[in-house]
Amino acid sequence: MTDSRKPVCLVLGAGAGIGGTVGGRFAMEGYHSVLCRRSDQADLDRLTNDIRDRGGEASGCLLNATQENSIEDLVEHTESETGPIEVVVYNLGAQVGNKSLAETSYKIFELGWRMATFGLFRVASSVCPRMVSRGRGTILVTSATAAVRGNAGQHSHAAAMGGRRMLCQTLNAEFGPKGIHIVHILIDGSVDAPDTLGKLLGPERFAELRRTRGMAHEGLMLPSAIAETYLHLAKQPKSTWSNEIDLRSFSDSPWWND
Amino acid sequence: MTDSRKPVCLVLGAGAGIGGTVGGRFAMEGYHSVLCRRSDQADLDRLTNDIRDRGGEASGCLLNATQENSIEDLVEHTESETGPIEVVVYNLGAQVGNKSLAETSYKIFELGWRMATFGLFRVASSVCPRMVSRGRGTILVTSATAAVRGNAGQHSHAAAMGGRRMLCQTLNAEFGPKGIHIVHILIDGSVDAPDTLGKLLGPERFAELRRTRGMAHEGLMLPSAIAETYLHLAKQPKSTWSNEIDLRSFSDSPWWND
Amino acid sequence: MTDSRKPVCLVLGAGAGIGGTVGGRFAMEGYHSVLCRRSDQADLDRLTNDIRDRGGEASGCLLNATQENSIEDLVEHTESETGPIEVVVYNLGAQVGNKSLAETSYKIFELGWRMATFGLFRVASSVCPRMVSRGRGTILVTSATAAVRGNAGQHSHAAAMGGRRMLCQTLNAEFGPKGIHIVHILIDGSVDAPDTLGKLLGPERFAELRRTRGMAHEGLMLPSAIAETYLHLAKQPKSTWSNEIDLRSFSDSPWWND
Amino acid sequence: MTDSRKPVCLVLGAGAGIGGTVGGRFAMEGYHSVLCRRSDQADLDRLTNDIRDRGGEASGCLLNATQENSIEDLVEHTESETGPIEVVVYNLGAQVGNKSLAETSYKIFELGWRMATFGLFRVASSVCPRMVSRGRGTILVTSATAAVRGNAGQHSHAAAMGGRRMLCQTLNAEFGPKGIHIVHILIDGSVDAPDTLGKLLGPERFAELRRTRGMAHEGLMLPSAIAETYLHLAKQPKSTWSNEIDLRSFSDSPWWND
Repeated sequence: MTDSRKPVCLVLGAGAGIGGTVGGRFAMEGYHSVLCRRSDQADLDRLTNDIRDRGGEASGCLLNATQENSIEDLVEHTESETGPIEVVVYNLGAQVGNKSLAETSYKIFELGWRMATFGLFRVASSVCPRMVSRGRGTILVTSATAAVRGNAGQHSHAAAMGGRRMLCQTLNAEFGPKGIHIVHILIDGSVDAPDTLGKLLGPERFAELRRTRGMAHEGLMLPSAIAETYLHLAKQPKSTWSNEIDLRSFSDSPWWND
Repeated sequence: MTDSRKPVCLVLGAGAGIGGTVGGRFAMEGYHSVLCRRSDQADLDRLTNDIRDRGGEASGCLLNATQENSIEDLVEHTESETGPIEVVVYNLGAQVGNKSLAETSYKIFELGWRMATFGLFRVASSVCPRMVSRGRGTILVTSATAAVRGNAGQHSHAAAMGGRRMLCQTLNAEFGPKGIHIVHILIDGSVDAPDTLGKLLGPERFAELRRTRGMAHEGLMLPSAIAETYLHLAKQPKSTWSNEIDLRSFSDSPWWND
Repeated sequence: MTDSRKPVCLVLGAGAGIGGTVGGRFAMEGYHSVLCRRSDQADLDRLTNDIRDRGGEASGCLLNATQENSIEDLVEHTESETGPIEVVVYNLGAQVGNKSLAETSYKIFELGWRMATFGLFRVASSVCPRMVSRGRGTILVTSATAAVRGNAGQHSHAAAMGGRRMLCQTLNAEFGPKGIHIVHILIDGSVDAPDTLGKLLGPERFAELRRTRGMAHEGLMLPSAIAETYLHLAKQPKSTWSNEIDLRSFSDSPWWND
Repeated sequence: MTDSRKPVCLVLGAGAGIGGTVGGRFAMEGYHSVLCRRSDQADLDRLTNDIRDRGGEASGCLLNATQENSIEDLVEHTESETGPIEVVVYNLGAQVGNKSLAETSYKIFELGWRMATFGLFRVASSVCPRMVSRGRGTILVTSATAAVRGNAGQHSHAAAMGGRRMLCQTLNAEFGPKGIHIVHILIDGSVDAPDTLGKLLGPERFAELRRTRGMAHEGLMLPSAIAETYLHLAKQPKSTWSNEIDLRSFSDSPWWND
């Protein structure tokens, strides 16, 4: 029996940057996008309404991904109520800004792991059996420079992201041959995103940065452009998959250069 | 004064696999594709005629890329006679099959470098100044597993490809900020290509491999699918570039696993 | 006021393989070695007695490293009662054998992180301030192939070890310039160690493996040889430090080859 | 019939930095060191005399390593006249300073390859069969940051060093199991060496750098300390080999951090 419902694109970490934009892009391609984020129902409604205004299907859900059973229930509920999850966009970050070792509490260190590593393990544990039974599925994992090199002040972030990357490789080793496409996407530069960079810098410095480096200068990565690459990856046929890819602005040095 | 001619996609190493197919794909997007290869005028004509039959523009040229001035003259001639080179697809391979150190002559070792490393340096030396003056350009470099790990019997190939990858990074460091997009594309699996894998295996073993692993099994990379990724990379806007990406079939283990 | 006590080499994970042997080697160089392990007081006594018989100083302690305050109290107690910790050998493994995703419970996944990643973070949080105040110190981190590539069945192990490696790099970025030498030592092969490989294989298969690949064949890594490299790393002067090194038997393929 | 002569340590690139110092260190361990360099007989004599004054055995030879048969004849002559080459220290650099693409002539690019990549291939082609027949041997390859990442201005250097590293891996894949130990040693920082850094900076700036960063500051790598690590690597027993290791000063950032 074929599932007559629309395939679902499940986005974990759907703010007004990569997550929300990718969700919107997949909705335009015929997916039902389920956008999940921790807080701000109003902004979440804005995102899903915007998708619907453009003719797409979307629903939203507030979710504390570190809470027990939150991800597991979401997967269960989405599969039974909305449709088969064909694409997962794992977009939960764990950047806490630069903190010295003394400033990095055990709690912060553990939280990084819960968000960036364990959360991916949990969602994979929930969706992979379903994807295997359908013989297909895609898990797009947003990652960061900290996944490939540790830098001062990044104790929590790098440990968590390094674990995330190795987890992507173990998942691919087991599930690639079963038709599940897992991609580690290294976001190796600053994204023009009010919910992450904007909050990190504050409104004034963010506006200044957009003026001097972003916008016409094209020195900040655009979520809409990132979304095109996510979509391309999801469309790659089984014969020709990417598992690791990097992304940065033309004016940003790659991680291996600075 | 704007150049009213079609932008050119210059393909070095245009056989009936990645090179020819990528050239055809770009021609369908509005480029004039210049297909270059060492030998077999008849097959080259077949490729360019096929592109024209499908409504694209293409021209072909036989070229010994290791010969003095061959690449330099080609770039010069193409720019003056055909159009501005906006995309280079550097697809010259240097795989000579597995050879022990004793079997790898100095000549073979040097030839690998001339094809895989020095040829890229030469084409970059010729086209980069032109691309810089136009403020844009894309160099897509087909690469191989040997670029990231040496394996027994790969003395010539790995030394050449390892140099090629590091050259891509130096070119990007200098020319990325000037608007030239350089991508190292790691082809980490077997390609369903008669001109390379086919010739390596011979017609019978190639047919057998296609039957058992390729075609419906999707275990051989399809040049047409690879071409979609090349095109996607060329279309990435300046704000959001990839510099390194890998590609393999879902059933092939990544290089880090075997 | 100079501390007149012997410098301490603190070994976390001191079984009859790398940990115990490295501890013994440092004791022969004038350190007081504190050997810690989870269980088997009798065997621990055997290790410390053996060191004392050879003229070295050592003490032992049973410790559940995943328990709250266990590592912190150990560091505190060692510094006040035994001597300044100049060398930490972080040798806690997290290999649980190959387990599919379905077989990897949340508990196993978390335990891997607690042993391999969080434990290192905890010991670093405790000893680094002390080492900084003394202007010197060495943290030698035993690591595994899973730190650099994920493989099927290694979900817990690879995520934990990948995090461990990135943590080593963040610690080095902060503490290297302060005189603390942090080394990530990639054990990329089988170690001739009864407490790890021996227990994994069982006594008969382990004896067989030693007969066919180990001993005179030199195909299993010897803890005594590993210990020489650990000691060499600890002796490197500040002007000339290694941060990453790999180790394997001559007959083992490096991780990038298989 | 056992060879009663002293084992030879053959150093290619033996200036007053790493090469000469490593040669001296091995001579103190009982090797006959053959020191080869391109020019300056007087300085070469000073190096060999100094070794002899300290009770070691050494001979020197001026050699243009890029010349046809130079390396091959040297190996032949050394084996017949001096002793069995048990250790090769391949220390030929190919750093030409930072040069833009336009400033990097074909000749410079090719010379980099001839020094850094092809020269290693040639010496390996000559010595490996001899080492295989003896069942042992060590090839220590000095390498540079450019082997693992390309940077602006490093076109020639990075392409050559990237090739060198991949060549080390192919050599190891074929010859490791035959008892030949090949090590890629990443010198990832500035070396306190008058013949390389000194010449690059000129006497005044070099003296200034030594005063402010080197000497008591320990911010420049000392050839004598590097030599200890080279010796350690050569002494590793077959059961426990390193194939890749990095070295830098405590105050230098690793390549992945800047």
